Amino acid sequence: MINQQWHLVSRPTGEPTPSNFKLVEATVPDLQDGQVLVRNHYMSLDPYMRGRMNDGKSYAQPQPLNAVMQGGTVGEVVASKNAAFQAGDKVVAPGGWQQYFLAEAAQLPMMRKVDASQVPLSAYLGAVGMPGVTAWVGLVTIIEPKAGETIVVSAASGAVGAVVGQLAKARGCRAVGLAGGPDKCKAVVDEFGFDACIDYKQHPDLKSLSAALKDACPKGIDGYFENVGGITLDAVLQRANAFSRVAMCGMIAGYNGEPIPLLAPQLILVNRMKVQGFIVSEHMQHWPAALKELGTAVATGKLKYRESVAQGIEAAPEAFIGLLKGRNFGKQLVKLV
Amino acid sequence: MINQQWHLVSRPTGEPTPSNFKLVEATVPDLQDGQVLVRNHYMSLDPYMRGRMNDGKSYAQPQPLNAVMQGGTVGEVVASKNAAFQAGDKVVAPGGWQQYFLAEAAQLPMMRKVDASQVPLSAYLGAVGMPGVTAWVGLVTIIEPKAGETIVVSAASGAVGAVVGQLAKARGCRAVGLAGGPDKCKAVVDEFGFDACIDYKQHPDLKSLSAALKDACPKGIDGYFENVGGITLDAVLQRANAFSRVAMCGMIAGYNGEPIPLLAPQLILVNRMKVQGFIVSEHMQHWPAALKELGTAVATGKLKYRESVAQGIEAAPEAFIGLLKGRNFGKQLVKLV
Repeated sequence: MINQQWHLVSRPTGEPTPSNFKLVEATVPDLQDGQVLVRNHYMSLDPYMRGRMNDGKSYAQPQPLNAVMQGGTVGEVVASKNAAFQAGDKVVAPGGWQQYFLAEAAQLPMMRKVDASQVPLSAYLGAVGMPGVTAWVGLVTIIEPKAGETIVVSAASGAVGAVVGQLAKARGCRAVGLAGGPDKCKAVVDEFGFDACIDYKQHPDLKSLSAALKDACPKGIDGYFENVGGITLDAVLQRANAFSRVAMCGMIAGYNGEPIPLLAPQLILVNRMKVQGFIVSEHMQHWPAALKELGTAVATGKLKYRESVAQGIEAAPEAFIGLLKGRNFGKQLVKLV
Repeated sequence: MINQQWHLVSRPTGEPTPSNFKLVEATVPDLQDGQVLVRNHYMSLDPYMRGRMNDGKSYAQPQPLNAVMQGGTVGEVVASKNAAFQAGDKVVAPGGWQQYFLAEAAQLPMMRKVDASQVPLSAYLGAVGMPGVTAWVGLVTIIEPKAGETIVVSAASGAVGAVVGQLAKARGCRAVGLAGGPDKCKAVVDEFGFDACIDYKQHPDLKSLSAALKDACPKGIDGYFENVGGITLDAVLQRANAFSRVAMCGMIAGYNGEPIPLLAPQLILVNRMKVQGFIVSEHMQHWPAALKELGTAVATGKLKYRESVAQGIEAAPEAFIGLLKGRNFGKQLVKLV
């Protein structure tokens, strides 16, 4: 059985290009005792993958060269020689950029069965998956919002940002988003229920962005969920209230190039702020509570999300490059089945 | 009775100069019911005072112009029309840059009696006072050191820094200081018991300072007590371990001029760090525990400190300007009696 898979064949300098990837045809080997074979239905594309394509120091091992691109997937078990899984089980898995994922026994703890009757299977890669839990952990455990506070989120139309704002609203906060372009901003307010959304493309300099934040946050900023880096953080610090909290989740603005300095770090002291970086996989103790709230909210229609779905495995690199440029709207997926 | 006092008469741009201050002769008014008159024995000079000389947004009200410079003092009650204090009481007070402090009833909660039999009176402005408690709060409640970790402190020979390192040592940590010049570095190791001290004047650029930190911290940095800002924080971030903590207490490097950018803020995310600013007066709940540990440690000779003592009220502005330039060694005081 043929298994098409994308390998990383060279490390990008700056923006990735299609030539960094190669589509390889492998053969699915015969199943051994203890193994499970999964057919991937959807692949998840995420900004963190750009960081792993570098060889430098980071919180995770680099993506190896000439090996399948790593990433989350949802799919269906098609064959199993392990009592924990049966053919027909729907699963979330670290299945990678390929059509079939052969899970070794040692990988099974990273694979979990999901119920696709109440929640669409693809949502387990988004609002009820890693992005949703990322939003929950950063907001609930680092920002710790209190009713009446103002919470700002960058990349607010994205898979993480949209959930942050909706969870903040559910906790009685004012939610203010930043997104690129009028269509995304409209959806952030009309679909996701934020109180306001700033089109950062209309505010390319710090002074203008800071003024827009002042307008949107008349009581200042109490919490900021950081997905982008760059001047957005500078502007937020100018509007931050005493004892405000910043959850640093992503700094996509800096992934492709040189670090972007923080202009006035003394504001962290002046405002007695807490700025804390985190990655969701190091907060496993919070996943059950997060998934419970997120799954219920999606199943009952209270938590909205959008998906950008690329069709077919061939589309993965271009979709990933587009994701890094902000061309997606909501969770970026690749549909394989 | 004549009361010599220093007024701030103009706001400095950049470094303060003697012309920003004016020595004024006032008269001590007659004591009214409820008031207490204190003769100041020592005045405390502190870096935070420079920040308050600005008119901009900060965590405290600016120092008013044409009014007595605010600041902590220790002294002796010389007259009292309030049952809570008697002549002869030794007190810590917000007595300001003057010879006599007339405390209104409303100010008495900020004044406390101290026992000068076990601990020298001046130490209540240093190791057993605001600087010592600052060290305790930042280290114990923000850095939360664990035995075996490496804790780095800037301005390590100063009133705060020297205490940070000694408290870290008492908790089983490796303590590494940064100080200016070989004499201060020698004292940090020989007198205060740090494991190592880096002379930052020998490392004027980031690469050199980062290499020095690597040598002094072979297991990386788990906690950093920030007293200075500038490239020291950049260098620390390059050597910071996963889950390390930065307590931001002072950024003296930026007080006199433009903000100094933080070069690579994404390291806060990469290292999943917590960076938190604080001011000690907002953590009053910790003062009793801190003062108990600090007072016992000074009384039993376990906690060492140094003082730079300027003589006479006339000397205050020059001593303050010298403090900002790092000319002091340990707690900067002005002795009045």
